[in-house]
Amino acid sequence: MHDFYALAVHGGAGTISPSVDTQSETPYHKALRQAVAAGEAILSSGGAALDAVIAAVCELENCPLFNAGRGSVYNADAMHEMDASVMDGRTLAAGAVAAVRTIRNPVVLARAVMEHSGCVMLAGEGAERFAHERSIETAPPEYFATKQRLDQLMRIRQVAAGAGLDHDDTITSKPGEPIDPDRKFGTVGAVARDRLGNLASAVSTGGMTNKRPGRIGDSPVVGAGIYADNRSAAIAATGTGEHFIRTVAAYDIAARMLYGGESLATAAHSAVFERLAAISGRGGVIAVDNMGNLVMPFNTSGMYRGWVREGEDIGTAIFSVPPSSISRY
Amino acid sequence: MHDFYALAVHGGAGTISPSVDTQSETPYHKALRQAVAAGEAILSSGGAALDAVIAAVCELENCPLFNAGRGSVYNADAMHEMDASVMDGRTLAAGAVAAVRTIRNPVVLARAVMEHSGCVMLAGEGAERFAHERSIETAPPEYFATKQRLDQLMRIRQVAAGAGLDHDDTITSKPGEPIDPDRKFGTVGAVARDRLGNLASAVSTGGMTNKRPGRIGDSPVVGAGIYADNRSAAIAATGTGEHFIRTVAAYDIAARMLYGGESLATAAHSAVFERLAAISGRGGVIAVDNMGNLVMPFNTSGMYRGWVREGEDIGTAIFSVPPSSISRY
Repeated sequence: MHDFYALAVHGGAGTISPSVDTQSETPYHKALRQAVAAGEAILSSGGAALDAVIAAVCELENCPLFNAGRGSVYNADAMHEMDASVMDGRTLAAGAVAAVRTIRNPVVLARAVMEHSGCVMLAGEGAERFAHERSIETAPPEYFATKQRLDQLMRIRQVAAGAGLDHDDTITSKPGEPIDPDRKFGTVGAVARDRLGNLASAVSTGGMTNKRPGRIGDSPVVGAGIYADNRSAAIAATGTGEHFIRTVAAYDIAARMLYGGESLATAAHSAVFERLAAISGRGGVIAVDNMGNLVMPFNTSGMYRGWVREGEDIGTAIFSVPPSSISRY
Repeated sequence: MHDFYALAVHGGAGTISPSVDTQSETPYHKALRQAVAAGEAILSSGGAALDAVIAAVCELENCPLFNAGRGSVYNADAMHEMDASVMDGRTLAAGAVAAVRTIRNPVVLARAVMEHSGCVMLAGEGAERFAHERSIETAPPEYFATKQRLDQLMRIRQVAAGAGLDHDDTITSKPGEPIDPDRKFGTVGAVARDRLGNLASAVSTGGMTNKRPGRIGDSPVVGAGIYADNRSAAIAATGTGEHFIRTVAAYDIAARMLYGGESLATAAHSAVFERLAAISGRGGVIAVDNMGNLVMPFNTSGMYRGWVREGEDIGTAIFSVPPSSISRY
């Protein structure tokens, strides 16, 4: 009866201002559409949700517009430390990597951790060694280096040093920059339901600009930035990571459904607008349940997102939509 | 009305066999009692749950009998990599460290992360650097080195190499060893309710013997190995870490109470005997709610534990007790 697929992706949430020139938003819409299409190609040929979310996140990691893989932000040492995770709703199997520096597609390593390491979570040098064992593709530092992200690091350092502003404050945008998300919220993610009703989630990030080396955000933390359980939903989060960890945001949605009998839409809305907001957390989630319902609530001014349901066109959006649409998508 | 305190500690769960000579269990009971007493000294003088759980866990970290701080197990590189976390039920503030090597009391560093880093979770070298910034006490490698743990590493390597056994299987005990927990389950933890009704949890571990370097278990993962929320309960878990991560075991108990209206006893029992057991997870939790109810369910043959409630004597136990007692304590 419900043998159709559904998939959603996001490219981060934050203080995003509509540009004067909407043409400059085009590359973002195009990249989101490409990620959705990569996942859909798998689902439409009967493939698994797990494969689809990995394919979609790889596209977003490979695109320098988003803060994951190529295009990752710099930490306080002007280095890249990337986190990623994946979860399979059929079995609750999960894999995550934290603070990896040389992995071309961290989400691919997260999957290898899930399938071959005997662990759920591997960090730092140990994760790199495991990647070498599994012949996971690496890339040199210059692959991850982008001028845009280095400029961001320099700006946030100036703001922090000159004006004495708290790092947690919203970063001032550089004049002329068309789209200025608060880069600290940058993450990419995907959730999917395949035709068999299996759910899966995947997440990847470069973390936050100027972050303390060794800082682990919510992205590789099962329950916080990611969760997937066929009995409830597949969830991928993006936002102020520490708040998502403290509220166990992703699993909070699943638990509201499992124990409180809430619908996906109500559960996700409550998690983002009530529980997370109560401790000043900002960001959003994308989620799909086993009926193929898709929701993408966020409490910031924008969240890069794309979605598709079998038989419908691919949709993409950046800014807020009326509340009635939020429950639909 | 409920202005009394309650505190529980654990020193790990696993395949523990009653010794022929019960005298050899004495040091464990003594150490558990000492940890409870350290926490109680704070609570009985009107101190905070947060201070009490840190004090109790420091005692357990300082005792070489338990797998945390001094007495931590060795990883596959014959090194120590320790994890710890703390959470404050008043504010949902949390702090965690993963894979630290030189910190005398990792739980003290976890508290510093919570209070001074702007992060929730710091790993590896970055965590060590933060410790240096905060002048947190370190210790040389020989402080953490114990012959007993090195012997365990050698035995598990022999078992793994010689018999081709899976590392996940229970380790064979050495003849003559009085108490032989499956060391992979070794963790210490404490939960408390103070006279003001505030809840807090703390956890610390050396991880599992022969673990893959960089492996992060449930102990520093908020929601999995630890949670505390004044509205529900303070929880500290111990067991097969990966299963606790996948089921978000600690927060699962809080969520059952919050969204399902379950009592602490029912919620903790379901989390350990149903949800965790469904994916073959083994271990237990200690938990206290804001009424001062204490529960300590475990699905292994033993769990080192100690507890006290204001006006009552300190209790300690290692093996199973009748179910009626489990719901009381």
